[in-house]
Amino acid sequence: MTTYRYKALITYDGTDFAGFQIQSNARTIQGELEASLKKLAKGEKIRIHGAGRTDAGVHARGQVVHFDFPFFIELEGMQKALNAMTSSEIAVTHIELTDKDFHSRFQAKGKMYRYTVDNNRFRDPFLRRFASHHRYPMAVEPVEEALQHLLGTHDFTSFASTHGETSHNTRTIYQASVEVNEAENKWVFTFIGNGFLYNMIRIIMGTLLEVADGRRPASDIPVILEAKDREAAGKTAAPEGLCMERVYYDEEDIPGRQK
Amino acid sequence: MTTYRYKALITYDGTDFAGFQIQSNARTIQGELEASLKKLAKGEKIRIHGAGRTDAGVHARGQVVHFDFPFFIELEGMQKALNAMTSSEIAVTHIELTDKDFHSRFQAKGKMYRYTVDNNRFRDPFLRRFASHHRYPMAVEPVEEALQHLLGTHDFTSFASTHGETSHNTRTIYQASVEVNEAENKWVFTFIGNGFLYNMIRIIMGTLLEVADGRRPASDIPVILEAKDREAAGKTAAPEGLCMERVYYDEEDIPGRQK
Repeated sequence: MTTYRYKALITYDGTDFAGFQIQSNARTIQGELEASLKKLAKGEKIRIHGAGRTDAGVHARGQVVHFDFPFFIELEGMQKALNAMTSSEIAVTHIELTDKDFHSRFQAKGKMYRYTVDNNRFRDPFLRRFASHHRYPMAVEPVEEALQHLLGTHDFTSFASTHGETSHNTRTIYQASVEVNEAENKWVFTFIGNGFLYNMIRIIMGTLLEVADGRRPASDIPVILEAKDREAAGKTAAPEGLCMERVYYDEEDIPGRQK
Repeated sequence: MTTYRYKALITYDGTDFAGFQIQSNARTIQGELEASLKKLAKGEKIRIHGAGRTDAGVHARGQVVHFDFPFFIELEGMQKALNAMTSSEIAVTHIELTDKDFHSRFQAKGKMYRYTVDNNRFRDPFLRRFASHHRYPMAVEPVEEALQHLLGTHDFTSFASTHGETSHNTRTIYQASVEVNEAENKWVFTFIGNGFLYNMIRIIMGTLLEVADGRRPASDIPVILEAKDREAAGKTAAPEGLCMERVYYDEEDIPGRQK
C-alpha cells in the first residue's frame, strides 16, 4: 500500500501535559496529535515518531515528528486541519513531505535546548509557565566558568537520571551559554549537543543553580564529570524551564561543531 | 482606631480570572487579595481599592492598590505573606506605607497599557495567554498613521463601550505607538493617556487591526472620532492581548506629556 511520509515541526506549551509520549490515562502531545490524525485518516490509527520524548511539563518550539499517512492530503490542508483539531497549546508550524527513509529520532545529528530561570525574588506570573523560579541571588561569572567545563566530549553519567536506558553515556556539547535579561531578571541558558541523556539538562541546570547562588564552586564540574556518579551532581531542576528548541539533521547546521 | 494605609504594586496573569473587581460567584483578583488580607487581619474584612478595574482575561504588570490594615505588619513580611497566600498567577512586586489621603484610583494622573498581537498564521502556544491572535497579514505604515490620528485630546465616545458610566468622554492620549518583533511575528502596542474609557483600548485595537490588514484606511480614524458613535468604530478586540502596565501619580513621570 502506498503511504505518504510527512515531517512536521511542532511547538507546544507542555504545562498541562504528562509529556510527549503516549500514555493510556494521561493527556500527552503524541496522544493528542495521533487522535487528530486518526480522524483525518477516516479512523485508521496513525503512529507518530518524535525526535525526542519530552517529559511532563517540558515545552518545545522545534520538536520534529514524522508519520505515514494512507493517502495524500496537500500540505496546507494537512497543517490547517491539524492546527484546527488540536488544542491551542499545540501548533504545527511547518509541514512537508519527506523520504521514506527519513526518521525524526534516528537521523537527528544534534539538538538545541533552552532552559529559562526566573530570578525575581517573587515568582513572575508572566514567566511561570515557561521558566523555573530561583529566588536566591545569582552570579554570572561562576556560571560561565561552569559552562566552559561542560563543553566538549565527556562521559555524562553523573548528569544522567538512573532511569536512563543507555549504557553508552558519552556525549558532545558544542555550545553551553547563558544570556541574562537584567530588566526581567530572566536567565536563558542554551545547550547544543549531539545528544542528551535522560534528564541531563535538568540535572546540569540543578547543579548550575548551586554554582550560581554560591553553594558550589564552578570547579566542581570536572570533579562531578570524573565521578561518573549521579549522586555527585545537583538536584534535577524543575521541568517548566526546559524547552526543546531545535533538532539538527545536517551536521553543517550545528553551531560550534568542529569540522 | 489607628489603621495603616498600604500601597502595593501588583502583577497578574488575568487569563483564569473574571476580572479585577470582586464578584460573589467568580474568581477575581480583588477577591483573592482580600481573602488573603482577611486571614492576615485575623478575620477582619479588608477592602482593597485598585487604580483600574481590568476586565475578565485582562492582565496587569503595574496595577496599584491601596488598603487600610488594622495593625502594623512590616513591609517585607506583608509582601512575603501576600505572595505566599495568593496563587502563582498574582504577585505583589512592591509594597510601601502611604499617606492617609492617597487613593489609588482618584489620584491617578495617567496610565500606560500595552496590547500584544500574535500575527503568526497559526496561533503561537507560547503567546496565547498574553497576546490576541490575528491571522491576516498586517502592514505597519497605515497602523502608524492611524496611531498619529489618535494622539492628543479628543472626545472618544466612538471608542467607548456603551456600558461605560461616564458622560464626559474627552481624554488625552500622550503616546500611541507600535513595535514589531519580526522574529516572533509579535506586535506590541503602547498607549499612554490621562485616562481611558470603558473598553477604549480594546475598541481602538479592534479598529487598528482592520487598518492593519487593509479592511479600513487609516484616514477613517478622524471620521470615527468625529461621529461620536460606537457603531462607527471596529469590534472590541479580545481581552488577552491587554495589559495594564503602569499607573502614574505624578504628571512629571508621564512620557510625552506637554508641559
